[in-house]
Amino acid sequence: MSKGRPPTHCRESLLIKGIELFNSKGYHATGLSTILQTCQISKGSFYNFFNSKEEYAVEVIEYYQALETDRWALEFAKLEGSHFMRMRQMLEKMLSEYDPSTEKMGCLIANLSGEVGNESPGFRRAIQEATERVIVLISEDMRVCQEEGSVRLDLSPDALAHLIWDIWQGALLRMKVNASLQPLNQCIDLLWNHILPSPLSHSDTQQGA
Amino acid sequence: MSKGRPPTHCRESLLIKGIELFNSKGYHATGLSTILQTCQISKGSFYNFFNSKEEYAVEVIEYYQALETDRWALEFAKLEGSHFMRMRQMLEKMLSEYDPSTEKMGCLIANLSGEVGNESPGFRRAIQEATERVIVLISEDMRVCQEEGSVRLDLSPDALAHLIWDIWQGALLRMKVNASLQPLNQCIDLLWNHILPSPLSHSDTQQGA
Repeated sequence: MSKGRPPTHCRESLLIKGIELFNSKGYHATGLSTILQTCQISKGSFYNFFNSKEEYAVEVIEYYQALETDRWALEFAKLEGSHFMRMRQMLEKMLSEYDPSTEKMGCLIANLSGEVGNESPGFRRAIQEATERVIVLISEDMRVCQEEGSVRLDLSPDALAHLIWDIWQGALLRMKVNASLQPLNQCIDLLWNHILPSPLSHSDTQQGA
Repeated sequence: MSKGRPPTHCRESLLIKGIELFNSKGYHATGLSTILQTCQISKGSFYNFFNSKEEYAVEVIEYYQALETDRWALEFAKLEGSHFMRMRQMLEKMLSEYDPSTEKMGCLIANLSGEVGNESPGFRRAIQEATERVIVLISEDMRVCQEEGSVRLDLSPDALAHLIWDIWQGALLRMKVNASLQPLNQCIDLLWNHILPSPLSHSDTQQGA
């Protein structure tokens, strides 16, 4: 395997491959040999970068979260309209990039939480921190949405952020199992049309009939 | 291993052990040798019951779902009060049985969906069917709650059931990663005090301030 490999590797390319690998097969089903083969790297070179498969996976999780956060910020800045509607557009854009017919879909954090979320202090910390960082960002978004009058005020930005995170993670799991985008579309409709809007801004919701 | 094993095994006891094993370590990290050791069964006897580890896991998922459904129905029948409040009591009872300090916690379906939800047709079908069966039951509960006037009417029982399932699965993942019941307590508070109630039945919610 090591003979024909390209002469250079960078940490980043290994981490990008890791996102695909762990998203597709999970942690335990992705053997070191598969990692080496996919990354076209020798065992020795791999261990120059990472002390263990677990250390690699932990870095992949951290890298994934940073990458997705940067991507979100970049794309979000290009959109126009209310903060609330830009968030919806972002989620719909994410959906349009998923492909239920392949295994390249889903959120690495959702997919790994159930499998290795409590396996070791390293995994626990990485997933917990990645989750909390995203929730803090959503909470900040909710604060802005409340200020612009588009989101209900009876729940704190923090409570709304946890609600959005939880329901989205659950829908991601159903998307994976059902190989369908329908759970996520349903989730966006529920949140943006019924659960999140301020009763004052949307006359068609919260009417109790 | 086979020498000292008890003389009899029943399918059911193997399935019960499977719930613990897969909940604690996931599917791939639970090797066949661990299963044989925990169940105190020889390889030959195991293969008399199941053709493969996957077939075993699929049956464990089906058994788990049936067991939890029966348990819910039995406990639910003992409670008094509105249907809506009995549902809340049931969830709080489930929480009181989780122990965040051990690995024996969480929902097998939530824990396995991310890992093996799309791994094979067998897993996909088992998890999908288990999920759908529970959602149908929750939907029926929501219909009753709407009839008794405790739950909002602007969303269908089916939409509410999917909302409850998704948010609960997401909170279960956070419980596992955080080793804390707080995500589930937060989820019950959000759903029962803010998201689900009919605006007519709860004057302290849905007020927009």
